[in-house]
Amino acid sequence: MKIAFIGLGNMGGGMAANLVKAGHEVRAFDLSEPALAAARAAGCATCPTAKEACAGVEAVVSMLPNGQIVKQVYWDDVIGHAPEGAILLDCSTIDVATAREVISVTEAHGYQMVDAPVSGGIAAANGGTLTFMVGGSQSAFGRAQPILAAMGKAVIHAGDAGTGQAAKICNNMLLAIHMIGTCEAFAMAQKLGLDPQTFFDISSVSSGQNWSMTSYCPVPGVGPVTPADNDYQGGFAAGLMLKDLRLAMEAAKSSGAKVAMGEHARAIYESFAAENASTDFSGIIRTL
Amino acid sequence: MKIAFIGLGNMGGGMAANLVKAGHEVRAFDLSEPALAAARAAGCATCPTAKEACAGVEAVVSMLPNGQIVKQVYWDDVIGHAPEGAILLDCSTIDVATAREVISVTEAHGYQMVDAPVSGGIAAANGGTLTFMVGGSQSAFGRAQPILAAMGKAVIHAGDAGTGQAAKICNNMLLAIHMIGTCEAFAMAQKLGLDPQTFFDISSVSSGQNWSMTSYCPVPGVGPVTPADNDYQGGFAAGLMLKDLRLAMEAAKSSGAKVAMGEHARAIYESFAAENASTDFSGIIRTL
Repeated sequence: MKIAFIGLGNMGGGMAANLVKAGHEVRAFDLSEPALAAARAAGCATCPTAKEACAGVEAVVSMLPNGQIVKQVYWDDVIGHAPEGAILLDCSTIDVATAREVISVTEAHGYQMVDAPVSGGIAAANGGTLTFMVGGSQSAFGRAQPILAAMGKAVIHAGDAGTGQAAKICNNMLLAIHMIGTCEAFAMAQKLGLDPQTFFDISSVSSGQNWSMTSYCPVPGVGPVTPADNDYQGGFAAGLMLKDLRLAMEAAKSSGAKVAMGEHARAIYESFAAENASTDFSGIIRTL
Repeated sequence: MKIAFIGLGNMGGGMAANLVKAGHEVRAFDLSEPALAAARAAGCATCPTAKEACAGVEAVVSMLPNGQIVKQVYWDDVIGHAPEGAILLDCSTIDVATAREVISVTEAHGYQMVDAPVSGGIAAANGGTLTFMVGGSQSAFGRAQPILAAMGKAVIHAGDAGTGQAAKICNNMLLAIHMIGTCEAFAMAQKLGLDPQTFFDISSVSSGQNWSMTSYCPVPGVGPVTPADNDYQGGFAAGLMLKDLRLAMEAAKSSGAKVAMGEHARAIYESFAAENASTDFSGIIRTL
């Protein structure tokens, strides 16, 4: 397939390269010249504008930093420039309301579109092992699925437009809550004279068990190898978790959801990320 | 062995019966006459006072409602009445400081003692499938272990005196936090148009996974059968979770641990249990 790829950042660069590896013809655009050079090295054709990247393609994939930029790109560069009937895939993590608005407007212009935010970091983007949570009609999902499968190990249909974003922010809000809870529990256990390994041995097979403990343990030397064993570098940055929590709070406000613990987690990451935005999000344990 | 059992409530009654089934001679005491009658029916010898229950025994097991009563029973009825050298096992859930004080004082009087709070409810007490988290010296643990094994499926040595209580409250604080987080995530997902079963399918195999979701799902009809499928009856009562959270906050205060999320969970259960103390703790989702 001929595919436009817009947004070749840390994540998008690896994703575009995986589309090339899968045999697609990729027309890539980014504002950054080094990103374009890397895309060329990976076998993409690069274009001087996003509009030109969209010319004659069957699909458009975007991976952009926020909802404002997503709207701008789709309004200015995709609608009327990608051929009518093309399938559009926005893999950015943005707010649910904007995702729904963009899908509604592009579909009114004769496109099909899904929101398809990812779970997994830079290594998963490069390795083609991302998980995609996809919102959109059954028909749009059916067309998007094989394109996403070339960039990930799991492609899950969450429901109608916007539910990909909804699934991601609900999941990540829960993750933030149990990561902070896990950090508080380990820190208190230690202050009460309980060895962290012993607390892990007990709680990881009891009702305290959660992914932050058993797959991403915030205590160095306990549980599997995690960013904690690498001085809290190289995992899921606290600044990105904060971004997701802000989106979750926006969604809660607009939908009337009560998320007292989620709001508390946002406040804690707000404060932590002010000085530690690039630190792994499990580094919160250092503040306890 | 000849064993005194003090405190034949909802939990203690079943535990004493399991000691009888294991072949021990149990001398039981409780303030309640119906509890004593049930103990007799289960094969215990019942005694008119706790002091008399302790006469001539090799071990004392207690299952009492709070630290104040534990102190009173050990000061007045056990020390000087149970034979010197007896092994003492307090299975009550009480604060860490009191547990350490009682162990320290009884050991100064020539006894050995462990704190051995349980995980598991009335059904596990009756069925002999409790988990015991045990604090005490290696030697005291070695003597307590076979007695506890007659009442449970797992007996874990957490460390020195008081660490059984520490493990339990750290674990249960974490449980409260991820239960509330799980309820908030499911409730928000639904308000955002995401089907609860779909959110479960995604998050239970993603980074949001936790015991409250995958073993104790608060949404009826989703995940395994839980109290949610029984109108939030018959599980772990919100009032008992609140008791554990209050103990956790006491421990945090005395040890200098920072538990902002734990404190928030306590406030939420304080408010919930005011009107729903006997409702299962997952019933918090009804307030969202």
